[in-house]
Amino acid sequence: MSEFDEAMSLTRDGDGQVARGHLAPGWAIGEAVNGGALMALAATALRHDIGADLDPLALSAYFLSATQPGDVEVTSRVLRQGRAFTTGECAIAQRGADGADVDRVRVLATFGSLADPGTAHRTIEAPPIAAPQDCLGADDAPREVTDAAPLVGRLDMRFDPPSAGWALGRPSGRGQLDAWVRFRDGREADTTALLFLLDALPPVAFDLGIMGWAPTIEFSGHVRARPAPGWLQMQTTTRVLTGALMEEDATIWDSTGTLVAQSRQLCGVRLPDGWSPPGR
Amino acid sequence: MSEFDEAMSLTRDGDGQVARGHLAPGWAIGEAVNGGALMALAATALRHDIGADLDPLALSAYFLSATQPGDVEVTSRVLRQGRAFTTGECAIAQRGADGADVDRVRVLATFGSLADPGTAHRTIEAPPIAAPQDCLGADDAPREVTDAAPLVGRLDMRFDPPSAGWALGRPSGRGQLDAWVRFRDGREADTTALLFLLDALPPVAFDLGIMGWAPTIEFSGHVRARPAPGWLQMQTTTRVLTGALMEEDATIWDSTGTLVAQSRQLCGVRLPDGWSPPGR
Repeated sequence: MSEFDEAMSLTRDGDGQVARGHLAPGWAIGEAVNGGALMALAATALRHDIGADLDPLALSAYFLSATQPGDVEVTSRVLRQGRAFTTGECAIAQRGADGADVDRVRVLATFGSLADPGTAHRTIEAPPIAAPQDCLGADDAPREVTDAAPLVGRLDMRFDPPSAGWALGRPSGRGQLDAWVRFRDGREADTTALLFLLDALPPVAFDLGIMGWAPTIEFSGHVRARPAPGWLQMQTTTRVLTGALMEEDATIWDSTGTLVAQSRQLCGVRLPDGWSPPGR
Repeated sequence: MSEFDEAMSLTRDGDGQVARGHLAPGWAIGEAVNGGALMALAATALRHDIGADLDPLALSAYFLSATQPGDVEVTSRVLRQGRAFTTGECAIAQRGADGADVDRVRVLATFGSLADPGTAHRTIEAPPIAAPQDCLGADDAPREVTDAAPLVGRLDMRFDPPSAGWALGRPSGRGQLDAWVRFRDGREADTTALLFLLDALPPVAFDLGIMGWAPTIEFSGHVRARPAPGWLQMQTTTRVLTGALMEEDATIWDSTGTLVAQSRQLCGVRLPDGWSPPGR
């Protein structure tokens, strides 16, 4: 079984509305479980309720507190089943030190079928970037960068050279990261995995020299097509940065160049003392 | 009292968690109440629970069924109160013909203070468009267009000439609408009203010659600053359109040129028979 499928495994008891899962430390960034892994776990729970043949078209997650590696309790419920779309809600909680449940994430999501996504009449073309073998991977990064992000071990991630400067203290100042990504163990991405991958790159704030933790307030992902096997190309950007908040947009294309997912998140941001936007 | 404040009025009974409201036919587009009015109503209910001095920073709405003009029941609840951010959930329902409650909208939202939004280090500049007096308003539109959208009566909306062709059967094909907007009765916008206005323009699909109803699957709005009084400038765009789905992004700037709100929604779309993208 792939690492991702193992992380997404849920066991149910009783009426089946509450499922138990386990997210190992390998899915953490710093001390907290990665938000994308939690979104994919919520989608997995809802897919069980709604139908494994349907795809998560839209999923919104609100992060209430940092999820610690370990056991999680996932409660999901179908809100409305329609002809084309089915919507559900999901809550992820963990047992706190005092034995009481602590809310970690709340999710709303709508599912439908992407078996036939139809012609792409308008799209965003994938930007031309260096080939994977000419990009920079985790093996090229300083040890302190990869040590802080165990999640990196799950992924083969290759940064286009202009997008790799942050790891060496030379952020480009564009507010943009371009990379190739796939699972390190060879598992191909499906529409649930896309929800994980949308949040898998480092914060785009790194490319602006803002290296602190940027807590996600809200994350909405849209899955637009089922991905073909192979490398996925990904771009993240931010355009609106104030002293307190920034948005981060992500786009993923599959190996055929088809746009397969988009997302936007709002993050809190703390600017380093004396920070000014780095030159390009 | 302004029309908007009247529509946002809620009365509470019992423990105060359930509020009753009323959305008059004037807030409808076609047969259904406008989604933005419902999002602002959810934000109003949550603001009562969370604190009137806080602003809705992010709000995500999932639309389960079309809200009919008339009475609504709004159930809101705080999920987590933090130092900087407070998150809540909200459900809007209506009594169905058989007397049972029907779910209309589910909302998750996070509030915080925009009293001091900080310096805008990076932003999107408002595009140059014609001045309001040189734009096209509802008075210039064919009667069948305005009759279908009672909501138009609440707003003074002025379309930049290249964005007005759809109303005359000549969509520009850009997939972009630029307009000025403000309340017709002179009420100034606040951060709650911005959530309404983000969804107030006609579907951007109209500018591609797709005139049917584009049901919103998911809508997430981010409020980035408290708006200054006066005209608001607004732009909506779509970039990714398949036979079944499209996304629509909206941006609002205030009269000082400050970007005050952004949104992205995913809509279902049904292409007219024989449709092809109109030339520019």
